[in-house]
Amino acid sequence: MEMPRPNPDIIARKAELVSRMLEVLPADAVISDPSETRAYECDALTAYKCPPLAAILPSSTQQVSDALRICHAMGVPVVPRGSGTSLAGGALPTADSVILGVARLNDVLDTDYDNRFIKVQTGRTNLSVTGAVEEHGFFYAPDPSSQLACAIAGNIAMNSGGAHCLKYGVTTNNLMGVTMVLMDGTIMELGGAHLDAPGYDLLGLICGSEGQLGVVTEATLRILHKPEGARPVLMGFDSNEVAGQCVSDIIKAGVLPVAIEFMDRPCIRACEAFAKAGYPDCEALLIVEVEGSDAEIDEQLETIMAIARTHNPVELRQSTSAEESARIWLGRKSAFGAMGQINDYMCLDGTIPVSQLPFVLKRIGEMSKEFGLDVANVFHAGDGNMHPLILFDANKPGDLELCEAFGAEILKLCVEVGGCLTGEHGVGIEKRDLMVDQYAPQDLEMQMAVKDVFDPKWLLNPAKVFPLQSSESHRIAAE
Amino acid sequence: MEMPRPNPDIIARKAELVSRMLEVLPADAVISDPSETRAYECDALTAYKCPPLAAILPSSTQQVSDALRICHAMGVPVVPRGSGTSLAGGALPTADSVILGVARLNDVLDTDYDNRFIKVQTGRTNLSVTGAVEEHGFFYAPDPSSQLACAIAGNIAMNSGGAHCLKYGVTTNNLMGVTMVLMDGTIMELGGAHLDAPGYDLLGLICGSEGQLGVVTEATLRILHKPEGARPVLMGFDSNEVAGQCVSDIIKAGVLPVAIEFMDRPCIRACEAFAKAGYPDCEALLIVEVEGSDAEIDEQLETIMAIARTHNPVELRQSTSAEESARIWLGRKSAFGAMGQINDYMCLDGTIPVSQLPFVLKRIGEMSKEFGLDVANVFHAGDGNMHPLILFDANKPGDLELCEAFGAEILKLCVEVGGCLTGEHGVGIEKRDLMVDQYAPQDLEMQMAVKDVFDPKWLLNPAKVFPLQSSESHRIAAE
Repeated sequence: MEMPRPNPDIIARKAELVSRMLEVLPADAVISDPSETRAYECDALTAYKCPPLAAILPSSTQQVSDALRICHAMGVPVVPRGSGTSLAGGALPTADSVILGVARLNDVLDTDYDNRFIKVQTGRTNLSVTGAVEEHGFFYAPDPSSQLACAIAGNIAMNSGGAHCLKYGVTTNNLMGVTMVLMDGTIMELGGAHLDAPGYDLLGLICGSEGQLGVVTEATLRILHKPEGARPVLMGFDSNEVAGQCVSDIIKAGVLPVAIEFMDRPCIRACEAFAKAGYPDCEALLIVEVEGSDAEIDEQLETIMAIARTHNPVELRQSTSAEESARIWLGRKSAFGAMGQINDYMCLDGTIPVSQLPFVLKRIGEMSKEFGLDVANVFHAGDGNMHPLILFDANKPGDLELCEAFGAEILKLCVEVGGCLTGEHGVGIEKRDLMVDQYAPQDLEMQMAVKDVFDPKWLLNPAKVFPLQSSESHRIAAE
Repeated sequence: MEMPRPNPDIIARKAELVSRMLEVLPADAVISDPSETRAYECDALTAYKCPPLAAILPSSTQQVSDALRICHAMGVPVVPRGSGTSLAGGALPTADSVILGVARLNDVLDTDYDNRFIKVQTGRTNLSVTGAVEEHGFFYAPDPSSQLACAIAGNIAMNSGGAHCLKYGVTTNNLMGVTMVLMDGTIMELGGAHLDAPGYDLLGLICGSEGQLGVVTEATLRILHKPEGARPVLMGFDSNEVAGQCVSDIIKAGVLPVAIEFMDRPCIRACEAFAKAGYPDCEALLIVEVEGSDAEIDEQLETIMAIARTHNPVELRQSTSAEESARIWLGRKSAFGAMGQINDYMCLDGTIPVSQLPFVLKRIGEMSKEFGLDVANVFHAGDGNMHPLILFDANKPGDLELCEAFGAEILKLCVEVGGCLTGEHGVGIEKRDLMVDQYAPQDLEMQMAVKDVFDPKWLLNPAKVFPLQSSESHRIAAE
């Protein structure tokens, strides 16, 4: 993946940059030794690597503002970084950039159970937000598989979802307000602990903007009451297409489970070996979970299981205990890790209309043969958010490129059937060149014009989201 | 309310404008006779009136594009208008403007029950969207009280809500994609029939932008399965504060009814006289509705009614038939009309944290005495979206101004307790001067900079949303 040519003038001024950073940040928050900056050379898309010029770890909104003001004055690009779990290269540095890590911004600032919100600094991990409120019976709904590690900052940047977003929506549906610092150091407040603010919905715009419009340092998040109970059902089928049809039928019937997860045989086997989840050995597995009181759960599962039976499942089994349920979910949430123990893989993230699931799964199978690369499928089927994992051998010359070409074809297929390039991982560097398949030129130009407003010098998270040539020409026009 | 001085050059070129409009629109779609343009002199905020220079009624996206291109070239301001039900003056013309009415854009373009969406032209009324899908068991969730008349275009412009939005969210939560025409005639596609598009969320930005960024001509809307059943409960209390506390306790308990509506005595009496809804004669009335199967409804109502009993209700009664439920809702949805038969009133639209309801209702009562104007309260209590109706006498000199001053104080109170100026009616002209109470100068400037991107000449829906002086200075800077 091509990256912009680093600016040699900036690299030459590294000493000045570091010394000015030390004026506004404590010494242990400024990392400039190449042996240490290497820790920031990539995120979870490890196929691409580049150490930054320096990394900083501010611990307050004011420190973020001070540091950004300096970078802005010096023309230094800044790459905001949550926990570095991006699967799309959303936090990949350039050689002339400063990584702004939010890891030390991890305080809980306010909890309000009457009005059902929590206010946190955005370096806090997703799961520890729920951790802060669960003893009062609340939880924070978006649950990316990486929730043990991933930061709220990254969740906001990518508008992250998760298995349970079928019912609860993605980050944007659970985000009430933010404090954000613009590239020039200006501190803004957007939204707050109330419904829908007046004027333009800049909060909605910020969510999913991949750290290119500002650095979000604080967030007010909607918290929800934990449901009385929840119960997953395992449904095994002897083909991907039939499992896809079952998902489509459940959604069409108007039942809304809290999650419908899909795994095919390669994933089932890897997860079972890893987590001993009790998965059946079959072609395709659905995990369907419903919530409520025992009576409500029974009623919903009756409808759902009746639909499943019309598709001749090879397995149809309700969880019988909380411990069994936890194991079933551990298996699913470990899928990427479990696959990684067996193979190099590239994880895609396309979204399609649910009714297209059987067709798209069939086409992916055919394309897998054409490209000669295996594919494992694991994804949030209920909302059509697919995660095909293309397996390849990183040590085999040409295999990564072949894998990238195959991935691009799958994502173009998603767009063709009325879907889109990404559900929750973001565009990052991975999909920036495919944006022209999703958008007409005038639509892309309008997005870049919005970027011009928030970050006129195009210094924030460079070389992401837009085709490199387009974003470079905007950046140069601003100079 | 001050309006910008009309541009005499434009008014002088009216004949040219009309003749150019007739080149791209059928004769019956161009209205220029002053006796006919008067029909567009105001919306539902009838305190302010100004006939436009002309009105046009295009019936396709292409016609909208052609007409806007001409207005853009001639520098003519354009005021988009749905059905003219805005309570905030969102469709108030200026004397040098063209009203662009979307009433003839009312086709259903696509229905897809497998993927649960409908695509419509935006002149279609809110209720007729549900009308187009209900025989298949579906409905469109946002339900403004004006839903019989109001257009989807206006719902998108104002991010409209309604009584049942406590459970289903407001327009932005049910909007999947739009076709929008920019002021210069460019046609854009945003979002679509899929989850979360890549890149910046311009769709989220458009929703609620009050027709100032573009004219939305087509919309893809999420449709939902009708619940098995629904049942409202009437709860009467002997004070507003106690009713407010009951709402707060229901929300805090984690039950999520589909609606919690609040009415005080003046509203109860007016609605009862109008709709014979069977309301008790008491100080404050809550209508709490839950949905599901009979068993689910019983279970939820058990919890909710137990909470209500701790507040010593003077009435606590479940609806016993579909017909009774319909009458209960007819009463609530007729509230504005019923009040209008008795009094002139100004309807406010502020949002507050739910826990602040008792305090804010008490303060409004006190302020009512200070200003010497009565207030009737009717609102979506569950999400803290208040609609105080200030009663005044339009024929009494000074009463409107007093009413405006009182209204401003109430909205400032909403902001002070952590809420905001509008829930669903929008800023329009009514609240534009209060935006400085909600936002810091740099936050407002950023919103106006976004307007610069979409409509650099500031021709779309002039004099709304931002303080007149600020928006005029942006407009003049662009000249």
